[in-house]
Amino acid sequence: MLVLGIDPGTAITGYGLVEYRKGKESLVKCGALMTPSSMEMHLRLYEINRKLALLIEDFKPDVIAIEQLFFHKNAKTAIMVAQARGVAMMTAASYGVQVAEYTPLQVKQAVAGYGNADKRQVQLMVQRILSMHQLPKPDDAADALAVAICHIHSYRLGELCKERGY
Amino acid sequence: MLVLGIDPGTAITGYGLVEYRKGKESLVKCGALMTPSSMEMHLRLYEINRKLALLIEDFKPDVIAIEQLFFHKNAKTAIMVAQARGVAMMTAASYGVQVAEYTPLQVKQAVAGYGNADKRQVQLMVQRILSMHQLPKPDDAADALAVAICHIHSYRLGELCKERGY
Repeated sequence: MLVLGIDPGTAITGYGLVEYRKGKESLVKCGALMTPSSMEMHLRLYEINRKLALLIEDFKPDVIAIEQLFFHKNAKTAIMVAQARGVAMMTAASYGVQVAEYTPLQVKQAVAGYGNADKRQVQLMVQRILSMHQLPKPDDAADALAVAICHIHSYRLGELCKERGY
Repeated sequence: MLVLGIDPGTAITGYGLVEYRKGKESLVKCGALMTPSSMEMHLRLYEINRKLALLIEDFKPDVIAIEQLFFHKNAKTAIMVAQARGVAMMTAASYGVQVAEYTPLQVKQAVAGYGNADKRQVQLMVQRILSMHQLPKPDDAADALAVAICHIHSYRLGELCKERGY
């Protein structure tokens, strides 16, 4: 199973591709899709759509995992993130790719083992789980990998429950 | 000039097509693009993208006018509206259609003449400006027509200023 984690944003959309095979997850690729601030908003959103479409065409992920969005301290930022998030979800649907949503708490618990983990701890755990030499960069890519790992843990738990007849 | 006003939302996206010719605006079509609540969010957003794409292909508007989004009392609603708004703007860009954004205050001032106008007053003015027999329905279509009219007024003002050498 190939999972594409997405951390949406207008300026930077982080992405992380994680393969789950034979009970183990491994890094395929991670990075960030950028759009210039000089560009008009509708063109930036289209740029996100096109770059994400290329990623989906190249790697053909089975599922796209994305964090649920809650209230943000900064309303303007929240609206911009939600717009980019809408475009990312729509792009997944346009390729027939399933979308799985997780709360920030679920992501932290899945990756770091507890919901109060801070950003740095989550990044360190992502690095360890995927046997990376360095911390994943930029932060947006690390967040995208974290939500991809969260989906794999959730999937694995489902499989375990099925095996044991729960 | 043909203006497509959009009032985005996940369940209902209102739209209003207004033609501006020889100093006068006239209604071309208005209505609402609906998505069922039983559908998953990413599929609803894709549905908005597809329905809006069909409208753009059928009518070939010169510009899409859309209200700016501010903080909403209900955070969940704001996020859902912003996601649909992002998809609408992206869809415009994917057809090379220009997007013009207006604040709710600008829309009220343009349509009703003052910024404190209530929803009903704005609807009545939309009906009068476009010589409609009834109030535009649903409310989302009325709001979409209002922002289209706002764009035409703003364009007309620009033309007047050019004419008079300001």
